[in-house]
Amino acid sequence: MTISRLSDLAVRTLMLLAVGDRDGDRMTAAIVATSVNASTSHVAKIVSRLVELGAIESRRGRGGGLRITEAGRHLSVGALLRELEGPGETVECEGPQPCPLAGNCRLRRAFADAREAFFATLDPLTVTDIVRSPTQQVLLTLEPAFSPTTSNDG
Amino acid sequence: MTISRLSDLAVRTLMLLAVGDRDGDRMTAAIVATSVNASTSHVAKIVSRLVELGAIESRRGRGGGLRITEAGRHLSVGALLRELEGPGETVECEGPQPCPLAGNCRLRRAFADAREAFFATLDPLTVTDIVRSPTQQVLLTLEPAFSPTTSNDG
Repeated sequence: MTISRLSDLAVRTLMLLAVGDRDGDRMTAAIVATSVNASTSHVAKIVSRLVELGAIESRRGRGGGLRITEAGRHLSVGALLRELEGPGETVECEGPQPCPLAGNCRLRRAFADAREAFFATLDPLTVTDIVRSPTQQVLLTLEPAFSPTTSNDG
Repeated sequence: MTISRLSDLAVRTLMLLAVGDRDGDRMTAAIVATSVNASTSHVAKIVSRLVELGAIESRRGRGGGLRITEAGRHLSVGALLRELEGPGETVECEGPQPCPLAGNCRLRRAFADAREAFFATLDPLTVTDIVRSPTQQVLLTLEPAFSPTTSNDG
């Protein structure tokens, strides 16, 4: 059972920004991409979604870059995933080759409940919660990605 | 959030066999494949896994074919998915480009809990439960796939 790559990277991006967002730091999609092992274009798409959701803000120019907002820090992981995963199904019932059982399937309802149980488990957890140490210690060792020296690049 | 295509088809295969398994019927991987919109080779792989799990049996020759076992009828959907999905992660933490946070990530533990909540919701539900009407009525309209006439093929 997996969440989408987009959701996965969105959570990791928020985690990085939550810890790396200190005075003097400058975060960009490229720096996040390196830290989370993804392409810059993919991260740029995620950043744009997170900006829409008010979880991060992006400022241009010197002293600019990506920053997590207060709302982003207090964002529930469950709520974020519900938003990003959308109202889709756990299995594909519709689509080009719809399942003939889709209309009346008891499994479909059961999967919807199971999916909700998954999100509900993550509801009480905020971005701030998940970057509390020991995770925070590890994130801080990713220093090169967001040390003040990188701000000389732009 | 999705389960694997293998798990998805395994559940659908069991549902079909649970309803289509009547005297005179002959089910094959090819017939199941048509009914669940999948390739025969993919369904054959799934059938082989379900045979290993004791959920179905496969007999060769005249009067043979695929049949769901009693154990298969009473199989918990949650238990089946736990088995098929394996002990994997909700997001990829290891792999060729391991996440630098993997060792200490609070999110990883939270995802494991959420995944367990997903399976636990499906634990009380057996294959027999999910093919009770109205689903059963729909499955029965898939008649051509497992009408007695198809047993003339082999």
